[in-house]
Amino acid sequence: MISFRSDYSQGAHPKVMEALAATNLEHTDGYGEDAHCRNAAAMIRRLVGREDCAVHFMIGGTSANITLIAAALRPYESVVAARSGHIYFHETGAIEATGHRVLAVDGEGGKLTPALVERALAEYRDEHTPLPRMIYLSQSTEIGTLYDKAELTALRELCDRRGLYLYLDGARLGAALTSEQNDLTLPDLAKLCDAFYLGGTKNAALFGEALVILRPEINDHFRWMIKRQGGMFAKGRLIGVQFEALFEGGEKSVYFSAAAHANAMAKRLREGMEALGVSFLGRSPTNQQFPILPAPVVRELEKEFFFYEWAPEEEGRIPIRLVTGWGTKPEEVETFLTRLAVLLRA
Amino acid sequence: MISFRSDYSQGAHPKVMEALAATNLEHTDGYGEDAHCRNAAAMIRRLVGREDCAVHFMIGGTSANITLIAAALRPYESVVAARSGHIYFHETGAIEATGHRVLAVDGEGGKLTPALVERALAEYRDEHTPLPRMIYLSQSTEIGTLYDKAELTALRELCDRRGLYLYLDGARLGAALTSEQNDLTLPDLAKLCDAFYLGGTKNAALFGEALVILRPEINDHFRWMIKRQGGMFAKGRLIGVQFEALFEGGEKSVYFSAAAHANAMAKRLREGMEALGVSFLGRSPTNQQFPILPAPVVRELEKEFFFYEWAPEEEGRIPIRLVTGWGTKPEEVETFLTRLAVLLRA
Amino acid sequence: MISFRSDYSQGAHPKVMEALAATNLEHTDGYGEDAHCRNAAAMIRRLVGREDCAVHFMIGGTSANITLIAAALRPYESVVAARSGHIYFHETGAIEATGHRVLAVDGEGGKLTPALVERALAEYRDEHTPLPRMIYLSQSTEIGTLYDKAELTALRELCDRRGLYLYLDGARLGAALTSEQNDLTLPDLAKLCDAFYLGGTKNAALFGEALVILRPEINDHFRWMIKRQGGMFAKGRLIGVQFEALFEGGEKSVYFSAAAHANAMAKRLREGMEALGVSFLGRSPTNQQFPILPAPVVRELEKEFFFYEWAPEEEGRIPIRLVTGWGTKPEEVETFLTRLAVLLRA
Amino acid sequence: MISFRSDYSQGAHPKVMEALAATNLEHTDGYGEDAHCRNAAAMIRRLVGREDCAVHFMIGGTSANITLIAAALRPYESVVAARSGHIYFHETGAIEATGHRVLAVDGEGGKLTPALVERALAEYRDEHTPLPRMIYLSQSTEIGTLYDKAELTALRELCDRRGLYLYLDGARLGAALTSEQNDLTLPDLAKLCDAFYLGGTKNAALFGEALVILRPEINDHFRWMIKRQGGMFAKGRLIGVQFEALFEGGEKSVYFSAAAHANAMAKRLREGMEALGVSFLGRSPTNQQFPILPAPVVRELEKEFFFYEWAPEEEGRIPIRLVTGWGTKPEEVETFLTRLAVLLRA
Repeated sequence: MISFRSDYSQGAHPKVMEALAATNLEHTDGYGEDAHCRNAAAMIRRLVGREDCAVHFMIGGTSANITLIAAALRPYESVVAARSGHIYFHETGAIEATGHRVLAVDGEGGKLTPALVERALAEYRDEHTPLPRMIYLSQSTEIGTLYDKAELTALRELCDRRGLYLYLDGARLGAALTSEQNDLTLPDLAKLCDAFYLGGTKNAALFGEALVILRPEINDHFRWMIKRQGGMFAKGRLIGVQFEALFEGGEKSVYFSAAAHANAMAKRLREGMEALGVSFLGRSPTNQQFPILPAPVVRELEKEFFFYEWAPEEEGRIPIRLVTGWGTKPEEVETFLTRLAVLLRA
Repeated sequence: MISFRSDYSQGAHPKVMEALAATNLEHTDGYGEDAHCRNAAAMIRRLVGREDCAVHFMIGGTSANITLIAAALRPYESVVAARSGHIYFHETGAIEATGHRVLAVDGEGGKLTPALVERALAEYRDEHTPLPRMIYLSQSTEIGTLYDKAELTALRELCDRRGLYLYLDGARLGAALTSEQNDLTLPDLAKLCDAFYLGGTKNAALFGEALVILRPEINDHFRWMIKRQGGMFAKGRLIGVQFEALFEGGEKSVYFSAAAHANAMAKRLREGMEALGVSFLGRSPTNQQFPILPAPVVRELEKEFFFYEWAPEEEGRIPIRLVTGWGTKPEEVETFLTRLAVLLRA
Repeated sequence: MISFRSDYSQGAHPKVMEALAATNLEHTDGYGEDAHCRNAAAMIRRLVGREDCAVHFMIGGTSANITLIAAALRPYESVVAARSGHIYFHETGAIEATGHRVLAVDGEGGKLTPALVERALAEYRDEHTPLPRMIYLSQSTEIGTLYDKAELTALRELCDRRGLYLYLDGARLGAALTSEQNDLTLPDLAKLCDAFYLGGTKNAALFGEALVILRPEINDHFRWMIKRQGGMFAKGRLIGVQFEALFEGGEKSVYFSAAAHANAMAKRLREGMEALGVSFLGRSPTNQQFPILPAPVVRELEKEFFFYEWAPEEEGRIPIRLVTGWGTKPEEVETFLTRLAVLLRA
Repeated sequence: MISFRSDYSQGAHPKVMEALAATNLEHTDGYGEDAHCRNAAAMIRRLVGREDCAVHFMIGGTSANITLIAAALRPYESVVAARSGHIYFHETGAIEATGHRVLAVDGEGGKLTPALVERALAEYRDEHTPLPRMIYLSQSTEIGTLYDKAELTALRELCDRRGLYLYLDGARLGAALTSEQNDLTLPDLAKLCDAFYLGGTKNAALFGEALVILRPEINDHFRWMIKRQGGMFAKGRLIGVQFEALFEGGEKSVYFSAAAHANAMAKRLREGMEALGVSFLGRSPTNQQFPILPAPVVRELEKEFFFYEWAPEEEGRIPIRLVTGWGTKPEEVETFLTRLAVLLRA
């Protein structure tokens, strides 16, 4: 069965596996206090263009989100997110478990805008309501869309005006940075955000995310926070080793080429489906595509392909999600398109 | 530099690495809902002799502890642990972060006894004090000692009498089960405990622990708990694959042979040091040894060997911790003993 | 200055003050374990028609809400409320502080309906989202409206069908029960709800609420929960004494006559304003009225009357909130209406 | 039955009751934003000698403690307290419910010393342990003892040296300040502590505590914290009115005279018992006394007097707690002593 299930359905890129094998017998100190983590952090600081930022290697996205947000907020503060945002829609109240409200806002194309955020803030005026203190967004978003530089700059200005932090969840930042539509660089992100992470799990690593913190007060005793939230990894070096492998070669490294490959596969899928007259839920320039297909076609496809139905059937049609990854093969894409063409014609 | 730093200072046993490499390109569903996790869970249920228990694969010990304990306790309930217990001494208040007190009790040789627990319970009588509801213990303990069957049975009886859960942290359960002094089997544990975990991180895995829950009410919606506490692993199958490799062959599997090897190395260390007249902090029959050495000797050893000083210098002597693992080599042990002999003679 | 600011802007009804004075020198045990609390609880059990329910005297509404909700929910569970509901809109994230999401739903006239709740539930399907487990509603609502028996019964049926608790915040239950539109009795509430409280603070007490719990599993160790949440009152008898005074005389007691008085005053306000052609935000049959007035009129009224502007000015008009209480005098109402008539005519 | 049960077993001092009655029909804004609270806060700032401190009126001691501590600590930080301290021993894990460990230290005479605290701190060194950040103490302590100026100054110096906050729980501060042994003034406390509260509940108020915060960063958005923790009182002015009454007259006010009376009654009790050869648990110079009496004598006394048995019977003797309050009458004390003399002679 061919899988377009997720960008974490396979293991890691071969270069990552090689690096893990090559370093397997080394003895190092635990908890991320080793040469690999230090080296990978230095590589990331160079890519990001900020020698003074902190880099922490985290075991997963939810762990990164709860630790960063709980470290940044005082107890009565809340975080604003799009309703489709991962912390609201897909983390089982893990933020609330740290005592903070996620203030969900209906986004536009999965994205927040200054106007949407301002409207939400207007209701939070005094000591009877939790104080919004951070904007959370994902790049790319849960539905594959991107913030461009102007949009992110406008949100930054809002944050400066209203005293908010800006935190960017980069579970799929590789796909974002290598998208044809992208006009943001890592140094841009380091300038516009107070914290963000470079996702590994969904981009060619076995697991792990590299969290970049630009604000010293958020980073204060951050390792205590990681441990307290249950995210301190004993063999911490494993994540350092992986990010060394992912970023070796800088702009030409696996991190970027793997993401670019996933995007290219997704683009071929989209163009192939467009040629078949398929319509989409939004227009994603990254590695997730959301075609809307007749229910019987979806049922047939499910016999040969593995993917999510994204929303319930409506008027005989079902939006599905197709995700490509570092390991998606061109022939898998073609097989899908060929089969789909047959089914749509039937 | 030769390392006796920890049992997680190296990567994984070669069999585990091979299994990860062999399955790397498979596509599976995420979050532990895959054939490898199902298979590994079935293997564990067989080893444990309980077809009806639940098995969850967790990313690490702290994550397992906070999720299990927060799932088992109502908000006003607390967990009793030895002061040296991992949840009290080495998890940065992660249990308190879930809203529960860890009621620390001075242990005897790192262990709790019914009498010690009863004395602690006596102070908790009414609605003005948090209600003790669980006993937490580690096997082997933080200082390498073991509960024997009689001791664990006595604690179980106390639990039955006082309405407490019994939870066993098995970060080093491999070392415990293969110790010469051990008289407990996995089926014994499944009978005596309400939950326990089989540690992988400290016993030949890259990472991961297999949490076994014997009580349906603790297991109720446990996957929601895992996600909420930030411990749901996207490529969950990685842990399943590792435990398949660790337990393949049952009693003769890597899980047991690796731990037995670590214990054998530790025993050789202990006996070698005893022959040199060294005294110890407690008497550990497992893979951690705590010799007390003259401070100048410790300083010299630190130039060639990597280990923890376990407690501050007192009267010119320092207790150190030496830990062996699946990868410790006999010649490393001999090098240490030879060097120590020279230093002690000097 | 005449106040329509709130139903808690004055002290207590004279009968309540007399009871406090009369019992002031008694010595009793603390924390609600005294004869007055026992007696008041028995009175409430009789009114409610359920000898088996638990009654706890709480210091305030937020304290009642957080304690009840935290006692009822397991960690990964959430509570559904109207966006205007007190726990979402006016408690500074106090529910989230106990680790639970408040799932806010846009209400209709401040009320939830089965359809609205069902739509919200539809998005919460698996272990990646917090599990909705309780419906929270207020009677009367934040904007003065009422659930009738059919509506509450429909929500109860939904709860039974979906395994949800139904919790009713009765901060203004007096006003609800004595409204002309009301068709619900206290025994009805005890049948339809799993817990509810009879508000004292907003209905003639100095302070205090009587929380009625119908489900034994929610009531389990509830006094531990009260203490843990910081709501255990040392001189607990003070609340018992007040509720004795409020309910002495049963159906003819101060609790009902004070609320009926407040409603009558509000009705006179509403009818007077309707006669002046004023329109309203919703139609409240209880002691809160929300007239929409020209901004200049509001500015003039504010010189002589104390009330809240309820929402920002829009198209030159401002919705204000007028609240009546046990102590509102008919002449205060008439003074307001006379002044308003003059201002509107100007 | 004569009560030495607690200093909160009666209602309020007549002057407090009069003030509540006199202001009962006033209309004011809620939540402590009224002239009475402003005035009482100003009176307290003058007494304390610090115009720049913040004063918040709280509903009770536990509420004050959890709100202050949760406001002061970052998530991974803990608070050090004597094992007998109220937050450890008598608040059902309310501090842990806010996510923080209470690090319990065996005190000396109910008190902490720099040496005891230093020893506790020594175990908390790195990111694997929660960071101690505050010392909590009570004045008078749970067993009636007092810190003198030298002792408190020594703790302050420790705090400065180690970067800790010093918080003083003044539930019984009235009794402390008016004790014969006291050498500390309110201005001293404002200089030595980062926050403390003046207890009303246990000193002649119906209820309420006045929390004084000396550190701006702890006071930041403190009203949001009060609301979030469930302690925002709707008719907030009631506490302001009470503290106005308690402090009217400054040094000669009810607050001090009521406490001095309670201490005098306790002194007479102690001296009377000493004359009878009774021994005590510690030597309390305040309104709590802990005589150790033969068990049969205790049983007899319990028929006529209401008090706590403080600890279990040991070798035929039981330590009991006798507490005096603003309303204790000299003849009640004499009746007790007379009866005790008879029983001891029997």
